[in-house]
Amino acid sequence: MKSYSSEDAYLSDLSARAGLPEGFRAAAAAIKFLPEERSVGEPLPMKLSLILLDRPTPDFAAVFTRNRFPGAPVLIGRERLDEPAIRGVLVNTKISNVCAPDGRRDAESLLESLGRLLKARARELIAASTGIIGWKLPVKDMEAALPALVNGLQAETILPAARAIMTTDSFPKVRRAAVGGGSIVGIAKGAGMMEPNMATMLCFVCTDLAVPRDRLREDLRWCVDRSLNRISVDSDQSTSDMAIAFSSGRKPAPAAGDFRRALLEVLSGLAEDIVRNGEGAGHVMRIRVSGARTEAEAADIGKAVANSPLVKTAIYGNDPNVGRIVSSIGDHLGNHGLPADTDAVTIRLGGLEIFSRGAFRLDAEKEKALSGYLRQMGFDPKVKGYPQHDGTVDIDIHMGAGSSQVEILGTDLSYEYVRENADYRS
Amino acid sequence: MKSYSSEDAYLSDLSARAGLPEGFRAAAAAIKFLPEERSVGEPLPMKLSLILLDRPTPDFAAVFTRNRFPGAPVLIGRERLDEPAIRGVLVNTKISNVCAPDGRRDAESLLESLGRLLKARARELIAASTGIIGWKLPVKDMEAALPALVNGLQAETILPAARAIMTTDSFPKVRRAAVGGGSIVGIAKGAGMMEPNMATMLCFVCTDLAVPRDRLREDLRWCVDRSLNRISVDSDQSTSDMAIAFSSGRKPAPAAGDFRRALLEVLSGLAEDIVRNGEGAGHVMRIRVSGARTEAEAADIGKAVANSPLVKTAIYGNDPNVGRIVSSIGDHLGNHGLPADTDAVTIRLGGLEIFSRGAFRLDAEKEKALSGYLRQMGFDPKVKGYPQHDGTVDIDIHMGAGSSQVEILGTDLSYEYVRENADYRS
Repeated sequence: MKSYSSEDAYLSDLSARAGLPEGFRAAAAAIKFLPEERSVGEPLPMKLSLILLDRPTPDFAAVFTRNRFPGAPVLIGRERLDEPAIRGVLVNTKISNVCAPDGRRDAESLLESLGRLLKARARELIAASTGIIGWKLPVKDMEAALPALVNGLQAETILPAARAIMTTDSFPKVRRAAVGGGSIVGIAKGAGMMEPNMATMLCFVCTDLAVPRDRLREDLRWCVDRSLNRISVDSDQSTSDMAIAFSSGRKPAPAAGDFRRALLEVLSGLAEDIVRNGEGAGHVMRIRVSGARTEAEAADIGKAVANSPLVKTAIYGNDPNVGRIVSSIGDHLGNHGLPADTDAVTIRLGGLEIFSRGAFRLDAEKEKALSGYLRQMGFDPKVKGYPQHDGTVDIDIHMGAGSSQVEILGTDLSYEYVRENADYRS
Repeated sequence: MKSYSSEDAYLSDLSARAGLPEGFRAAAAAIKFLPEERSVGEPLPMKLSLILLDRPTPDFAAVFTRNRFPGAPVLIGRERLDEPAIRGVLVNTKISNVCAPDGRRDAESLLESLGRLLKARARELIAASTGIIGWKLPVKDMEAALPALVNGLQAETILPAARAIMTTDSFPKVRRAAVGGGSIVGIAKGAGMMEPNMATMLCFVCTDLAVPRDRLREDLRWCVDRSLNRISVDSDQSTSDMAIAFSSGRKPAPAAGDFRRALLEVLSGLAEDIVRNGEGAGHVMRIRVSGARTEAEAADIGKAVANSPLVKTAIYGNDPNVGRIVSSIGDHLGNHGLPADTDAVTIRLGGLEIFSRGAFRLDAEKEKALSGYLRQMGFDPKVKGYPQHDGTVDIDIHMGAGSSQVEILGTDLSYEYVRENADYRS
């Protein structure tokens, strides 16, 4: 179990990972504004960040939320996929620009202002927003901040952007992989509302490897499905999620398999960072479902366990209430009319067998050991600024029905989760 | 909005409803025991209750959980449906007897002991259990308590049983309807883990109306689908849920429609009691979905909103973060590949329009009014013993896609929910 004892120790590791690949620059800025929807009160803080290629690139890829009420940036981003080339992405926090009156026009108008400063066409720019749904972007306040943002562009590190896209995140997330003669550097934002389909999650990946557009798009989709789409902090999927990858094309492309493996490594690392930083999380659960009939069934079973409020609260309380694991599996299978051979199912918690041949395998000693294990894997949700360790609560479910397997990451459910989400807009 | 100011005021109302129909008796008892799975520590409390017909009746009906890891009582109960006649049901709390080694044998052995005392066959008796999953029933301790339980049988009121089946419930639940020359009296237990499919919910209905077995079974299924299966406190469905109805046949059967309407009234009342008593609930949400393509789609949309942790925590915080309602609908539709005409959707909160024609309809004044409304509909989850009022947070979602409609009841998500569920077994 790797552990960090301070924010400085973590940031030192992070800085070493955060060097920008060739051909990229990044910048961040902060503003305050009074939302139109609230006539009184304190101004709210918003952060802006910009990731920019030195030259427009045809080699970019994006995966968007499947939410049926997508934000204006998602609607715009989907159209941008048909553009011949892209220069970069402008990100803002605090307001997600979802279903706001004239939201689309506001986003386009911002990109036009940014384009004028960069001598780029607005159609070469992508917008990404996260935050409150339904409110309008403070376009004028944001436009006023753009010159400073552009002036702040530098080619050294992506860390300022990794910090500026954070919302309820407690620590910045940067992952890096070296492959061939180049590198892949990714940042992500997300600390709640996360479910399989990348909810309220923004992820930006920069590479200098000359991976052509079609391959980049195929690889991004494949890797997102096996990393960001296999995490679950709660069961909501946001209206604004996106993962975007850009290539500056400065280095020769590696073998196809090598690039995909490296991209998966980066995205899996970011996925684990996001889960570990889940709003108010006190444990990370690693749920391995094996012996399932299909990969889809295995993933659904894992998510049913990961999303069960009763499993989550028990883990939070360091209570090895393993009956809730079994119940959540049975609930899911029953609700979906799926068969279950309860005699074939084996379940382990922290490596200890707790269920097999149709019955629980528990005794006083095992209960004590499991409770100690949960305490050991817990962390204090009040510590902010860095991950305390990389340990996980391992739940292994063998269905005994086939040969498919899948791994799902999730978190527990704590007081702090409720507090953060009850007071989110204050 | 009807409100209660004390436990006494509520119990006084309840006593008036709790008179047993002709031909029934009820009793309750309490024991303490040391579970086999814990060699040390304080003994745990368990409550027993018994609802008994004076004579075996062929006219009984039961609906069981769809969970694929059902408890021994559910397995036994399903078999009892084929018996020619039934005398009654023995209920225990604290241990649910689910997937425990020899769980089925333990339950049968208890029913045999009870049968000897009652001069009834074990096959005429049904068991119902709620509580910790995986642990073994303390059969010897329970058997020792049976004579006192049987001696306590009385024909006046079902209230002692309504109290003795409570677990984390904060108040007993009794509903009554008069129809024809007789009555229907129902009790229920459940205050968490509730989802559509009656999770961790026990419900017992007694009537003196001579409704024949087949009609009783059809009516119970129909009414449960439209009451207990349309509530949602969290997204878990238990391994032990059951709803059982018994008729003593002492009064002539009313017209078929009249009985069904009265039964639905009793079950809908119990369903609302259960939601209002949801573990740590601070608001009850009444989600009406109309204009949907099918009733099933309407129910799924309503449950998606009711089960969204982000909607639930916002309501708990009296924060009209209406974006989360829209997001949870869009999430559900997107995940299930269902279409959405966002321009046709209209959403109201507390009667105020918050979303229409593809955009939010919010302003500072409306935000303030909504926040005040949420405060008004809230109640203090720490007050135990009685429901404080019968007000609900009304969320109306019109899909503009068809003519089906459904109503779902749910609760918010509070600190108290997490506390109760993290510490459940202590």
